[in-house]
Amino acid sequence: MTHPYFAVTMGDAAGIGPEVTAKALFHPQMPQGASPLVIGDAAWMQGQLKRFGLPGRFVPVEQVPLGPPEPGTVPLLQPPGAPLQGVALGRAQAPAGEAAYRYVLKAVELAQAGQVKAIVTAPLCKESLHLAGHYYDGHTGLMAELCHCTRYRMTFCTLDWRILHVTAHVSLKEAIRRLTPELVLETLQIGQEHLNQLGLQGTIAVAGLNPHASEGGIFGDEEQRIIEPALAQARALGIACTNPLPPDVVFRQMALGAYPMVISMIHDHGHLAGKLLAFDRGVNVSLGLPVIRTSVDHGTAFDIAAQGIANPLNLHHAYAYALLMAGL
Amino acid sequence: MTHPYFAVTMGDAAGIGPEVTAKALFHPQMPQGASPLVIGDAAWMQGQLKRFGLPGRFVPVEQVPLGPPEPGTVPLLQPPGAPLQGVALGRAQAPAGEAAYRYVLKAVELAQAGQVKAIVTAPLCKESLHLAGHYYDGHTGLMAELCHCTRYRMTFCTLDWRILHVTAHVSLKEAIRRLTPELVLETLQIGQEHLNQLGLQGTIAVAGLNPHASEGGIFGDEEQRIIEPALAQARALGIACTNPLPPDVVFRQMALGAYPMVISMIHDHGHLAGKLLAFDRGVNVSLGLPVIRTSVDHGTAFDIAAQGIANPLNLHHAYAYALLMAGL
Repeated sequence: MTHPYFAVTMGDAAGIGPEVTAKALFHPQMPQGASPLVIGDAAWMQGQLKRFGLPGRFVPVEQVPLGPPEPGTVPLLQPPGAPLQGVALGRAQAPAGEAAYRYVLKAVELAQAGQVKAIVTAPLCKESLHLAGHYYDGHTGLMAELCHCTRYRMTFCTLDWRILHVTAHVSLKEAIRRLTPELVLETLQIGQEHLNQLGLQGTIAVAGLNPHASEGGIFGDEEQRIIEPALAQARALGIACTNPLPPDVVFRQMALGAYPMVISMIHDHGHLAGKLLAFDRGVNVSLGLPVIRTSVDHGTAFDIAAQGIANPLNLHHAYAYALLMAGL
Repeated sequence: MTHPYFAVTMGDAAGIGPEVTAKALFHPQMPQGASPLVIGDAAWMQGQLKRFGLPGRFVPVEQVPLGPPEPGTVPLLQPPGAPLQGVALGRAQAPAGEAAYRYVLKAVELAQAGQVKAIVTAPLCKESLHLAGHYYDGHTGLMAELCHCTRYRMTFCTLDWRILHVTAHVSLKEAIRRLTPELVLETLQIGQEHLNQLGLQGTIAVAGLNPHASEGGIFGDEEQRIIEPALAQARALGIACTNPLPPDVVFRQMALGAYPMVISMIHDHGHLAGKLLAFDRGVNVSLGLPVIRTSVDHGTAFDIAAQGIANPLNLHHAYAYALLMAGL
């Protein structure tokens, strides 16, 4: 049995990704159970150690090591052909986007080959990606395409509870239009698979779309017309789930321990709740992909790039969640 | 100068309204500055004192007293002709709805005549109201009609911050349809008037409608097409307001003190945030009415009626907010 590694992609070089990666991996509270392997630029990452006076050392490698790393070191794998010379801090630019893209590509390749057990991603910049000619809405869509996967969901998770989105990065009007029983059912199935993966019991709570979950049809018909038929089908498949519950009530109940998971119909029920309940503990997890992938829940924060004030601890939560998913 | 009184309506007799009213008014931490005058059923309210072993006494009056009440007493005014005989606890029924309706009628009458400085309401039951033939969506709509007021907004307030809703109790689809620059502007104006009333400075934060406030138009056009024109008009009128901000970010910033108020486009941005940030401190305030009206942020809770476990302290927050608005 080889030593377990998690790929940690350094993200967009111009943002806080390299900083939080370096700080997190050499932090005394770095979660244990699998060793990190950074996918990124060797010189750029060594620069972080120097800039922020961090202990430790990145050791360039050509492939995933078979054994554990030397204490105080983290192996680093640099994909060829994505130079960062001339990349300026704090703004979107094609070279940084191209490099970030290649780190993800490499990480997915290693995960699909079973050489790393999970992928934990530092933030990339959508605009940089686009400038480099890669038109994805972020990590999740990119990885889904690399994995030839069309059945996946964005989530907001903590070690205690998790929120799955039926729709996410589309306008509210379009989200309502896209809502179908099939989409809701598929989300519940992906959710149940995830609970099974984690070995968790419990009823999945379902947030309604409308105020008060429409209060029996007074404030909209999507609960009765779209969501409830999906719930009936889910129950027939053995998935324990609630009826549609008021969006302004159900997330607090989850946080108090009543449910292991809430299904949110739209981005800003789930994300609004998640960020208020767990501002710095929340992580994004891509569910439904054939590889384990978790991510910090913050962006590149160009405005504070390289100032040394970025908090690396969210990456620990992302790493810990990946350990949970990998059973390590 | 006569002694200041606030009308406190006891709400639906079958719910927890009478219990929380009795407990709150004779509680050692009852806010001071104006004396409560209960509008409700004398026998029903006396029954609460007995049932829950509360100190104090309700003193039936025919009109608002000119001077302060005797220590340990609260005056109670019972509108004629709304008997509660036979009303059963814990369910919707016409007699309780009719009585609750008359309490509100009386309170508004007294407030409009300047005999009470504010109205603080315990919860009524919409279904009971409807059974009694009064087709309102709750207190706010009823009071607005009694005051011949069409320009008003529902809010979720704490003593530290406040959330105003542009749309509220309609389906999400209908809320998007109703969103106009005029409605957004009017909400900002009502919000600014409220800040002026409280003597507060600061910039009003505006939550967008779409995920990430549409991120420059990627996720919807309502920010650019509807909200931003309203903000430009508001600024021209001297109202300091932000651009549309991501709904999953702005409420936390408000709670941290960056803004005194957030304008929420839909019910479940504002209500979801409010209830997570201030579960038991939040109160509903009807803004735009010619009378001051605040309310507890909970319902009749029929399931726990008369069990003695209802927490009365939310009514203190509603009362304290009314004091703030009345400048007392």
